[in-house]
Amino acid sequence: MRRRDFVQGTGLAGILAAGAAPAFAQSQPEVKWRLASSYPKSLDTLVGAAENIAKRVSDATDGRFQIRVFGAGELVPGLQVLDAVQAGSVDCGQTITYYYFGKNPTFALGAIIPFGMNTRQHNAWWYQGGGGEMFNEFLKGYNCVAFPCLNTTTQMGGWFRKEIKTVADLKGLKFRVGGVAGAVLERIGVIPQQIAAGDIYPALEKGTIDAAEWVGPYDDEKLGLHKVAKFYYTPGWWEGNAASILLPNLKAWEALPKDYQAIFAAACAESNTVATARYDHVNPPAMKRLIAGGAQLRRFSNEIMDVCYKEAQTLYAEWSAKYPDFKRIYASYAAYLDEQIDWFGVADGTFDNYMARIKRNARR
Amino acid sequence: MRRRDFVQGTGLAGILAAGAAPAFAQSQPEVKWRLASSYPKSLDTLVGAAENIAKRVSDATDGRFQIRVFGAGELVPGLQVLDAVQAGSVDCGQTITYYYFGKNPTFALGAIIPFGMNTRQHNAWWYQGGGGEMFNEFLKGYNCVAFPCLNTTTQMGGWFRKEIKTVADLKGLKFRVGGVAGAVLERIGVIPQQIAAGDIYPALEKGTIDAAEWVGPYDDEKLGLHKVAKFYYTPGWWEGNAASILLPNLKAWEALPKDYQAIFAAACAESNTVATARYDHVNPPAMKRLIAGGAQLRRFSNEIMDVCYKEAQTLYAEWSAKYPDFKRIYASYAAYLDEQIDWFGVADGTFDNYMARIKRNARR
Repeated sequence: MRRRDFVQGTGLAGILAAGAAPAFAQSQPEVKWRLASSYPKSLDTLVGAAENIAKRVSDATDGRFQIRVFGAGELVPGLQVLDAVQAGSVDCGQTITYYYFGKNPTFALGAIIPFGMNTRQHNAWWYQGGGGEMFNEFLKGYNCVAFPCLNTTTQMGGWFRKEIKTVADLKGLKFRVGGVAGAVLERIGVIPQQIAAGDIYPALEKGTIDAAEWVGPYDDEKLGLHKVAKFYYTPGWWEGNAASILLPNLKAWEALPKDYQAIFAAACAESNTVATARYDHVNPPAMKRLIAGGAQLRRFSNEIMDVCYKEAQTLYAEWSAKYPDFKRIYASYAAYLDEQIDWFGVADGTFDNYMARIKRNARR
Repeated sequence: MRRRDFVQGTGLAGILAAGAAPAFAQSQPEVKWRLASSYPKSLDTLVGAAENIAKRVSDATDGRFQIRVFGAGELVPGLQVLDAVQAGSVDCGQTITYYYFGKNPTFALGAIIPFGMNTRQHNAWWYQGGGGEMFNEFLKGYNCVAFPCLNTTTQMGGWFRKEIKTVADLKGLKFRVGGVAGAVLERIGVIPQQIAAGDIYPALEKGTIDAAEWVGPYDDEKLGLHKVAKFYYTPGWWEGNAASILLPNLKAWEALPKDYQAIFAAACAESNTVATARYDHVNPPAMKRLIAGGAQLRRFSNEIMDVCYKEAQTLYAEWSAKYPDFKRIYASYAAYLDEQIDWFGVADGTFDNYMARIKRNARR
């Protein structure tokens, strides 16, 4: 029952219109949303964030605004969440926009591009540097609006059956790797493979592929990749951060009362702190277990990263020439990143590197 | 006017008790809180966070829950916010708990200790690692409850009139520096000075003190310290992060309806992302301006930091022997930090250091 109906039905409307009780003057309708996630429910770090947001929104509205969360494939396939939201067949999605870079590479800028920002830099650009506004202006063309809800933090570079020391070692390598990274890597001879999460392990075990990246220690461990490829590479230079979003349909969003909009936005940003903290909480012990289980940690060589960095810049120049939205938003992104790198090296970077040094010395 | 009063006054209580309208079954009273900040209103990065939370809470409750923000000295002096909240003379504070380490050093663990966590590590420990629960259990003894609302990120090491190359250069140095850092530094011969923000500049100009630290580029620039001491040291190893909180009085908190509690908690955690992003947004250009204005960037030597690190560990052992709360919570903190450092070096640290390398090479 809607409050306004109740009030009108009891003849109280006149009293309230004259009156001193603002709580009664506003509509607080019951709203029920269906949310389609790009992630399977087994990934608690990812789908868990959407579920926690739904709980917070419900608690903050005394149960009047309900969001029901569906995992990948329950309503729509994981990679078609944007399309379902755009069409209005679901009220809201949970996804990461680089999945859709094939439609337009601008989508990647809402998530991450190779050699892009780290987690805090992305948040600074999104919330304070105009990035969120620019990206949501672009999303209007797709009838939706994005709210960051979690960040995986810098990802790992994946599991390789053989050591990769030079660019030459990458040529002809069949590597399960996400979208934009694949577009960079195929320029130097890698054969990128698109394989759904559940199919990665058997493909790597059989040797159908030579290597596979997924997320980081906690999520990778669930897939069991360390059992079939022991060299674990860092960093995932294509995902210095990876920002997942909740993605309401624009009309559904605009139909919400202002107080529900405020609650939804706050709950998403809260999750962007708390669900990211969860990644930082679960990854260190997972990494320890993986190493204890035989994983061999390796760092991509500067030669490999330098060549990939150069190819990535060429790709961004090509996209800028072809896609006006990419050109405009990437110009903001690149200039912002440039300033951020200098600053991060001064305080946070110097502190973090010193703390790492203390631990190295303590081990000697 | 409270809804419950209104409902009872109109004789509707019986209908509602039987009824189908959950929106009416809950109390949604008008609540007005007074919030006393430890920071002056001129510091927009700090007090601005409290003001944004107050706005979000108001918007999310259709104006029914109002928080009025007062700057340092308007209701109570900045360093007595905890006492005012504990006594219930204000409903809520905004502060940072290391201000109160003189009462009990355990207070510092809710904010930062020298050679402690970085920003994300603190969030992981607080929200996911049990740190928040442990610290709030401790705060019950002071009749209040903490919600992180922003983080300054790793701070700078302050402004020095002369270069500091060795531990010997620090002996006898009059250094305006915050609480726990002072307790460490005085063990190696520094003379720590407690001086309020507005008095730092004249003290440094006159030579009453030799050096002063405040926060980081953006906040320091406002004080004008670069005009009277040109050597700007990094890192502020005593503040790898610095977590400010909103601090409701426990009885005021417990008196809130559950939906208001949910909204308040979400708005604080939202601010912990967005106000921290603001620090990351404003610091890089401020640092550029300071360098252009003549600031000379210097890194504390490993000799100095190694000696201070050792003194800090000794101090924590002494406090653990004397204060059971410190012993218990510090044991959790130290073990957590130890795991975090290893993990941060693997993915985020390797990525950040590579990006810094790219920029250095581009300059050559």
